[in-house]
Amino acid sequence: MPPTDSAIQYVRANRDRYLEELKEFLRIPSVSTLSEHKSDMQRAAEWVASQLRSMGMDNVQIMPTAGHPVVYADWRYATGAPTLLIYGHYDVQPVDPVDEWQSGPFGPEIRGENIYARGASDMKGQVHACLKATEAMFKDGKPGINLKYLIEGEEEIGSPNLEPFIVKHLDLLSCDVALNADSSILKPDVPSIVYGLRGLAYFELHVHGPSHDLHSGLFGGAVHNPAQVLCELIAGMHDRDGRITLPGFYDQVRKLSGEVRAELARSPYGEADVLEASGAPQLFGEAGFTANEHLGVRPTLEVNGILSGFTGEGAKTVLPAKAMAKISMRLVPEQDPAEAGDQLRAYLGRHAPASVTWELTELVHGPAIIVERNSDAVRAAAAALKTVFSKDPVFNLQGGSVPIVSMMKTRLGVDSVLLGFGLPDDNLHAPNEKLHLPNYFKGIETYVHFMANMAAGA
Amino acid sequence: MPPTDSAIQYVRANRDRYLEELKEFLRIPSVSTLSEHKSDMQRAAEWVASQLRSMGMDNVQIMPTAGHPVVYADWRYATGAPTLLIYGHYDVQPVDPVDEWQSGPFGPEIRGENIYARGASDMKGQVHACLKATEAMFKDGKPGINLKYLIEGEEEIGSPNLEPFIVKHLDLLSCDVALNADSSILKPDVPSIVYGLRGLAYFELHVHGPSHDLHSGLFGGAVHNPAQVLCELIAGMHDRDGRITLPGFYDQVRKLSGEVRAELARSPYGEADVLEASGAPQLFGEAGFTANEHLGVRPTLEVNGILSGFTGEGAKTVLPAKAMAKISMRLVPEQDPAEAGDQLRAYLGRHAPASVTWELTELVHGPAIIVERNSDAVRAAAAALKTVFSKDPVFNLQGGSVPIVSMMKTRLGVDSVLLGFGLPDDNLHAPNEKLHLPNYFKGIETYVHFMANMAAGA
Repeated sequence: MPPTDSAIQYVRANRDRYLEELKEFLRIPSVSTLSEHKSDMQRAAEWVASQLRSMGMDNVQIMPTAGHPVVYADWRYATGAPTLLIYGHYDVQPVDPVDEWQSGPFGPEIRGENIYARGASDMKGQVHACLKATEAMFKDGKPGINLKYLIEGEEEIGSPNLEPFIVKHLDLLSCDVALNADSSILKPDVPSIVYGLRGLAYFELHVHGPSHDLHSGLFGGAVHNPAQVLCELIAGMHDRDGRITLPGFYDQVRKLSGEVRAELARSPYGEADVLEASGAPQLFGEAGFTANEHLGVRPTLEVNGILSGFTGEGAKTVLPAKAMAKISMRLVPEQDPAEAGDQLRAYLGRHAPASVTWELTELVHGPAIIVERNSDAVRAAAAALKTVFSKDPVFNLQGGSVPIVSMMKTRLGVDSVLLGFGLPDDNLHAPNEKLHLPNYFKGIETYVHFMANMAAGA
Repeated sequence: MPPTDSAIQYVRANRDRYLEELKEFLRIPSVSTLSEHKSDMQRAAEWVASQLRSMGMDNVQIMPTAGHPVVYADWRYATGAPTLLIYGHYDVQPVDPVDEWQSGPFGPEIRGENIYARGASDMKGQVHACLKATEAMFKDGKPGINLKYLIEGEEEIGSPNLEPFIVKHLDLLSCDVALNADSSILKPDVPSIVYGLRGLAYFELHVHGPSHDLHSGLFGGAVHNPAQVLCELIAGMHDRDGRITLPGFYDQVRKLSGEVRAELARSPYGEADVLEASGAPQLFGEAGFTANEHLGVRPTLEVNGILSGFTGEGAKTVLPAKAMAKISMRLVPEQDPAEAGDQLRAYLGRHAPASVTWELTELVHGPAIIVERNSDAVRAAAAALKTVFSKDPVFNLQGGSVPIVSMMKTRLGVDSVLLGFGLPDDNLHAPNEKLHLPNYFKGIETYVHFMANMAAGA
């Protein structure tokens, strides 16, 4: 039996154990953005490191950064074969609103074909699938390629310490190509490879009016309400056609080519799928573009959160002293996140009234990326998907942002293969996050074939 | 010595004890809107009742309602003299944002000339001032007028059970005039009597988009963001001139008479005072009107609170499923609060896009009121203020709403004298609420003179 076949048999024979291990990983509340979870972050890093150690990887280390640590491991005995750097993250998003979860966010529960837990799909499930595929390669002799693992703990807060880490360890991390498993396919039976990601620029905006909360009856009408001002500023960031009004925002955005539009129009994932996955009453978007274009190739501006005044039970007649919004933009490759910040600042400078003061803080940024589709690694990934799913994968553009992909390109000079098994309705960053278990197991097998194909020089 | 003089002497001799008692009252966290404070509400009612009992009032009762109880007491032995109903409330507003308090909201602290605590000015201080003035009248023999006390526990949630209570107890509550101490003067040395109050209509608006929180990268651009929709709806509620755009909103609003405008222009409390008390960078308001007109005689619409999505520390790339706002209007006497609600509903029906659903709930409403200025009781109050402050009081229009004043008129057929000693910078409904202690003591003396003047048929 060829080595790949026996690795696949090993994977199939160990499904129950894999699932138990995955649950163990999901039980660790590794929320990177909340300081009270600092020790959980350490625990999650140790969990990943112990997995890497037990399967036979060398040089397993939990390496400090200015924030949460990076887990590193390598195996370099496949002389002459390429080196694959497997990137993932062990941190997860916060869980609020926690009362909307049907089962505890850190008490993984299987319902139907899915496992529900924070991080199940983004991306402990996929990190674990990589680990299990690698373990299977070791059980089957030795991997035919050189492997490095880089599993960080700060992806959900924008990877603020990863770039310095990479720069500091260029030799350790040198490789021929990266596998980024923080990705998804379009539908359970539609395998796909993401070749483009939007950039991200994420801000917090504070508007201050009176020096303290006022009685709305005694001051309302003569003092500008910062909640109202914030609403007006946000409302003005889009025009009636859903276009973003920040000065110069579209200046660098290229007109879509007929080719790109035609490929997006052919995608098996379309408007009806977006509508269903969202549960919205109807879709919406910038006039003149389709849903796939809105999501894949057009920039957007979203309010991620807004807070002002009294929001508890009942009636409090307050005129709030301040108002806050989290505002982020998804950018196309031609747009520079720093410039987008300048444009937002210019907009606020132009439109904020003198009756309030404001401040804008950048929280996260990362540029958009396009990956070369005709590389050995992408061909190895496409062939692996075809083997496991029995059909050719779709190449698609994804709306999310993975700044690490551009970091790998700039700092290590390598492309990333975006090969992951999330689904659009996995409730990423939302209550009831889930992972489709049949895809998790198919994912493990795909990673086995991918590594084997790379070893064979597919 | 005339009885009034000895009552005033008694007040002055007992200041220290009064202050200790006031602190005791302020320590009870009687927040009516929060169900966890139910037992504190009962404690506060009992505290008021025990005060009434110990000074010599008859028929002291804690009377149940569908919500928090009413404290009632009377004294009816001044044959032939008028009956005064003293209205107040023992409940207070919530304390959030609690981290902005310099001292605990229920740990009263004296700093400078002020005592700081939730409810100090609104209105435990004033209820206590009435109690102490009444006590002094009893110590001095007997009050020269008949007295009734009605101290409710639901004013800060819009007095939902007071009207049924009054209707059920019309005989018990019958009187010639009411004293409503839930009021303020313009400056420490500018005594004033409020003769007009704006009405209130308070709503909670919920906007729903997708069925659950979404990843802003995977759905942003194709799904309408309810936080953005809410901002657009709120922004559209005012035009560029600060006028409210709800359909028909100004239809019943009368043009201001030259007389009213002239009196407001002569007020010793003006734009500079509002600016200073608010701490805002500059004032604002409906074009064509002064600050005193904005606050006294023009209707307003305010956002009292707004909440959507992720508002914690850091960056969460969520496209929220829903957004909420608390929105209230201050109305002039010609406007009907129910109609204002219909106008808001009509506005939302006209402007909310089909990509979201919405629901609007009325939380509180009460009409505006104008009190007759040429009554015996108002003259007795004006003379009392002149005695204590050595100057004639200003008659002014207040921006807040006291629905109980119109309830007294409709149900008991009596006017209310709005005589209280709060100040515009008392931080009502806000952190660091305070009461100016010299005014608290002057208030007690004013109430003594007011009752004596009424007894003398001033």
